[in-house]
Amino acid sequence: MNSSYIIKVDCTDRKGLVYKVSKILYKNGVNIITNREFVDLENRRFFFRAEVNGEVLEEDIKDELQKELGSEANIYISKRKRKNIVIFCTKEAHALGDILIKHYSNELNANILAVVSNYEILRALVEKFDIPYHFISHDTLSRTEHEEQILEVLKLYEIDYIVLAKYMRILTPNFVKNYKDRIINIHHSFLPAFIGANPYKQAYNRGVKIIGATAHIVNDDLDEGPIISQDIIRVDHTYSWKDMQLAGRNIEKSVLSNALALAFDDKIFINGNKTVIF
Amino acid sequence: MNSSYIIKVDCTDRKGLVYKVSKILYKNGVNIITNREFVDLENRRFFFRAEVNGEVLEEDIKDELQKELGSEANIYISKRKRKNIVIFCTKEAHALGDILIKHYSNELNANILAVVSNYEILRALVEKFDIPYHFISHDTLSRTEHEEQILEVLKLYEIDYIVLAKYMRILTPNFVKNYKDRIINIHHSFLPAFIGANPYKQAYNRGVKIIGATAHIVNDDLDEGPIISQDIIRVDHTYSWKDMQLAGRNIEKSVLSNALALAFDDKIFINGNKTVIF
Amino acid sequence: MNSSYIIKVDCTDRKGLVYKVSKILYKNGVNIITNREFVDLENRRFFFRAEVNGEVLEEDIKDELQKELGSEANIYISKRKRKNIVIFCTKEAHALGDILIKHYSNELNANILAVVSNYEILRALVEKFDIPYHFISHDTLSRTEHEEQILEVLKLYEIDYIVLAKYMRILTPNFVKNYKDRIINIHHSFLPAFIGANPYKQAYNRGVKIIGATAHIVNDDLDEGPIISQDIIRVDHTYSWKDMQLAGRNIEKSVLSNALALAFDDKIFINGNKTVIF
Amino acid sequence: MNSSYIIKVDCTDRKGLVYKVSKILYKNGVNIITNREFVDLENRRFFFRAEVNGEVLEEDIKDELQKELGSEANIYISKRKRKNIVIFCTKEAHALGDILIKHYSNELNANILAVVSNYEILRALVEKFDIPYHFISHDTLSRTEHEEQILEVLKLYEIDYIVLAKYMRILTPNFVKNYKDRIINIHHSFLPAFIGANPYKQAYNRGVKIIGATAHIVNDDLDEGPIISQDIIRVDHTYSWKDMQLAGRNIEKSVLSNALALAFDDKIFINGNKTVIF
Repeated sequence: MNSSYIIKVDCTDRKGLVYKVSKILYKNGVNIITNREFVDLENRRFFFRAEVNGEVLEEDIKDELQKELGSEANIYISKRKRKNIVIFCTKEAHALGDILIKHYSNELNANILAVVSNYEILRALVEKFDIPYHFISHDTLSRTEHEEQILEVLKLYEIDYIVLAKYMRILTPNFVKNYKDRIINIHHSFLPAFIGANPYKQAYNRGVKIIGATAHIVNDDLDEGPIISQDIIRVDHTYSWKDMQLAGRNIEKSVLSNALALAFDDKIFINGNKTVIF
Repeated sequence: MNSSYIIKVDCTDRKGLVYKVSKILYKNGVNIITNREFVDLENRRFFFRAEVNGEVLEEDIKDELQKELGSEANIYISKRKRKNIVIFCTKEAHALGDILIKHYSNELNANILAVVSNYEILRALVEKFDIPYHFISHDTLSRTEHEEQILEVLKLYEIDYIVLAKYMRILTPNFVKNYKDRIINIHHSFLPAFIGANPYKQAYNRGVKIIGATAHIVNDDLDEGPIISQDIIRVDHTYSWKDMQLAGRNIEKSVLSNALALAFDDKIFINGNKTVIF
Repeated sequence: MNSSYIIKVDCTDRKGLVYKVSKILYKNGVNIITNREFVDLENRRFFFRAEVNGEVLEEDIKDELQKELGSEANIYISKRKRKNIVIFCTKEAHALGDILIKHYSNELNANILAVVSNYEILRALVEKFDIPYHFISHDTLSRTEHEEQILEVLKLYEIDYIVLAKYMRILTPNFVKNYKDRIINIHHSFLPAFIGANPYKQAYNRGVKIIGATAHIVNDDLDEGPIISQDIIRVDHTYSWKDMQLAGRNIEKSVLSNALALAFDDKIFINGNKTVIF
Repeated sequence: MNSSYIIKVDCTDRKGLVYKVSKILYKNGVNIITNREFVDLENRRFFFRAEVNGEVLEEDIKDELQKELGSEANIYISKRKRKNIVIFCTKEAHALGDILIKHYSNELNANILAVVSNYEILRALVEKFDIPYHFISHDTLSRTEHEEQILEVLKLYEIDYIVLAKYMRILTPNFVKNYKDRIINIHHSFLPAFIGANPYKQAYNRGVKIIGATAHIVNDDLDEGPIISQDIIRVDHTYSWKDMQLAGRNIEKSVLSNALALAFDDKIFINGNKTVIF
C-alpha cells in the first residue's frame, strides 16, 4: 500500500507545528505513511513533508493549513503523479540517452513531452523514442530572441520541470523566472570548483585526484543555484582531460538521474540558495 | 540552541500516531526541534524520534505516552548526556586508538570508564590516557569462566555501551543478554561477505576489488546482528592480504567511529535483525 | 599521438624480464608510450602490458618474445581496434540500454554485432538502433538444447566478447568453454555477498547499509569467476527491496560499463581466479 | 621477499627509455620486483619507478643512469627505510593524533623526530608518546621572525618530510624553499573549492552535498601545490557548519594518512604543479 498523496509545508518556525499540522491531517482522516520534518534554526524556517493515504480533500486541507500557518506558508498537496517534463540538450547524448532509456523502461516518474535543442544532432536519437524534437538554432539570434522562440514552443506544453541535460547555453533571468525553481541543470564539475567553461580542462590543469558532477536548480546566477545532488569519481595522472570528460559522463548522468528522482517525487524544498531534501 | 532531550518511541503502527505523540508533547510544553518518523510497512511497526526543548517532565510524559500507545510500545526519554562506555580490545591499536584520541579531543560523546582486554599489549597505550585497563587473560579458562571474570569487573561500572574495538573473541549468548542491544562490534569485512576468521585473507583469495567494514549490534549469532554502518575502500591486484588489512584498518576505525556517534546520540532503533537510523 | 598497438605478456616470473621484453621491442623499433608490469610473488607469475607506437611487425615480435620467454608464456600483440561483441539480455533494459546509448554516441570501443535474448521484450528497443535481435526462447527446451540454438546463431558472428547485460540464465561449462575468458557478466550484488537469486531481497532481509554490483569474467562456477570491477551505493532502512533494485540498477550499469571499457582496451589479465588490471 | 631498494627516474621522454633503464639495472644484477612507467605526452616527460632486489651498488647505478639519461634527469636510488619527519600542528588533535597512533602501532613508515606548534595546547598529547614538543609562539613576532625561530629548531633534525597536520599558519616562500617538495599539508576542503579560511563555513553557506579534504605538497601559493590525495563524504541539509567540521575531520585524517603512506614509500613524483603517483 503506497501513499497516494504528498503534502509539503514550509513556513516560519514556531512552537507546536508538528502537532498543529498532524492534527489537521488527522481530523481530515488522512493517514501518514511517512513524514520528515526539519527546522533551519539559523533562518527559523520549518520544513515538513508527508506521504499520506486516505480520502484526501486537497482544497479543504490546504485551506485549513493555510489558515493555521498563515499566508506566508508554502503549502503543496498533490496526488502522486508522473511529472511532465521537457528536456533541453545540445550535442552530447549521454545524459539525454540515460533519461530516454529510463523513460522507455518506465523507471522515470515522468512523461517526456518534448526535447528542445539548439542543434539537430540529437534529433535521430530522440525520434527513435517517438518524442517530439524541437530544433531551435541560436544562429544569427540574440540570446533574448533565441529564448523567445523557445518560450513560444514551450507554450505548447504543460510543464512541471525543464531538465537541462547538458544544454550548453546560459539562460537569462527572464527565461528562468518563467519556470522558477523548476529548471534542473547538470553541471559537469563538483561545484563550486570549476565554475564556467570546460571544467574538465580546468580539473586536468589543476591536477585533481577526484572529479565530480553537480545537479542544481537553475537561478539567475550561473552555476550558483541550490544544489540537489553531487557525486565524484577518482582520476589519476594517466587521465587526459578527454579521459576525464569521458569518465565524468558516467557521473553526470547518474547525478542528474538521482536529482530528477528526488524532484519528481516532490522531495526537494528550496531554502534560499540551498535545498532541503527528504 | 540545541535540543536538551531525546524522545524515542517505537510501537505497532496504527492511524494517527504522529498526531497522538506530538499532541502529548505539545500539551506538556515540549518544543520539537527536529523529528523523524518511519513506518516499517512489512512489519507494521512505527518508529519516532524527536530532539526537543523545554521543561520536560520525563516521567509524566513517559506515562502519558505509554497509556496512549499501550504496554508493548518502547518509550525512551532522556536528557542529552554523554554515554558511559567500556571498550574491549585484543591486540590491535587502531580502532581503540582512534576512540582514545576522539575522547581526548572531546569529540566523543561518551566517557570511557575502562578498557578490558585478554592481552596486556595495549595497556601502555590506554594508561597514557589515564584510563583503567583490565587485563583478563583467557588462558587456561573456559569461555564461560573467562566471561564470568569479565562480568565481575564490569559490575564496577554503570555502562551504557560496550564497544568491541577489534576484540577477537566471540561472546556467548549468556554474556550478550546482560547488555542486550548495547554491545557494538566492528567487523573487518563488508558483511555478509566474509563472515568469520581472517576476512582479509578471504577477500584476497577471492580477488575482490573492494573491501569493507561493518559496525553492528552484537546478538547471539556471530556477525549476524543488526548492521549500523558500513563503508568500503578500493583495492587492486597489487594488494597482498596484509596490504588489505593495513588499508582496511582506516575503514574499520571510521566505520566504528560513525556507528558510535549514531549510538551515543540515540539515533539507532533495533527493528528485528535490522536497524532504523535517524 | 595515441598508441597504435597493445602488447600483453604473462609468463612464469624470472630475473630480467622487463629488460628482455623491452629489449626485443626496442630492437624492433617499437616505441613504448606507456607500460605496466606486475609480479604475483605468491604464484611467481609476471604480467606486462605496453601501449606502443611504431611499425610493429606483429608476427616477428611475437616469435621473438615466445622464443625468449618460452612456450608457456601468453603473448598478445594487436593493433588497437574496436572489439566485436554480442550482448545477451533477458527482460531488463537498463544495462543493455546504457550500452546501446554509448555505442550510439561512439563512446563504446566496440561494435555490437547482435543481441540475443530468451524473451521478445527488448526487441523493440534494440531494433531502434538497427541491431539484429535474436529471440531464442528457452521454453520447452533443455538447457543444453537452448544453448545449442544460441551457439548456432553465434556462428554467424566473429565475436571478441559476449556481454551478459542482465541475462538471467546460467550458462553451462560447455557453453563457457566456447568463449573462454571472453564472457563478461554483471551480477547485481557485491560478490561474494548474496550469490544466486534475488540478491536485492537478500540484502534487504539482511538489513545492509550498502548494496553493490560486480562485473566478472564467467567461468564454470556461478558468480565465482574473476572479478573485474565492483562498486556500491548507500541505502538505508527506508528502502524496500524494490527500491534497492531500482537504485542498484544505476550501479549495475556503471560497473558493467567500466568493466567493458577495461576489457575492450585489453587491460585485463586472467590470473587464476583473479584479474590483474592495468 | 620484499624489495629492498626503490629507484625513481624522471627525465625528458625519448625512445627506448624503458629498455635503457632496465638494461642498466639488469647488467648490475638488480632484480625488478615491480615497476611502473608513465609518459606525460603533453610535456614529453618520462617517469619510472621500480622496487628492486639484489646487491645494489647505489652510486655505480646512479652514475650509469645519469650518463645514459643526461644531466637533467632526476635519479633517486635509496634503500627502503623509514623516513624521518617533523609534524607541525596548531590546536586540533585529530590529524596529529592519528599519526601518533599509527606511529605507536608501527604502521607509519616513519620516525617522528619532533612536533612543532605555535600553541601549547597539544603538548600533553604529544609528550604521552615521548616525542619532543617545540612550542614556538608567533605572538609579537613577524611571520619571518617566527619562521626563523622554527628553522633554528629544525636544524636539530635530519628531516625527510615536514607534515602540516592542521598547522593553521601560511608558510612563506623562503621557508618552503628550505624543504622544497618535502612539506605535505592537509587542507580541509576539496580543492580547488573553498580555498582559504574556514572552508566548512564556505561549504555550509553554499549548500554543498559533499565535503572533502585534500593533501598536497606545499609550494609558494596557498593551497595551490601539487595534489597527492583527495577524498569526500556526503553531507545534507541537517549539517551545521560545525557538524561538517566534525565529520570532515575523519576525512582530513584519512586523506593525510593516505598521502603520507605514498610519500614515505617514495611513490610520488612532482610534475610541475601536479603529481604522478605510482
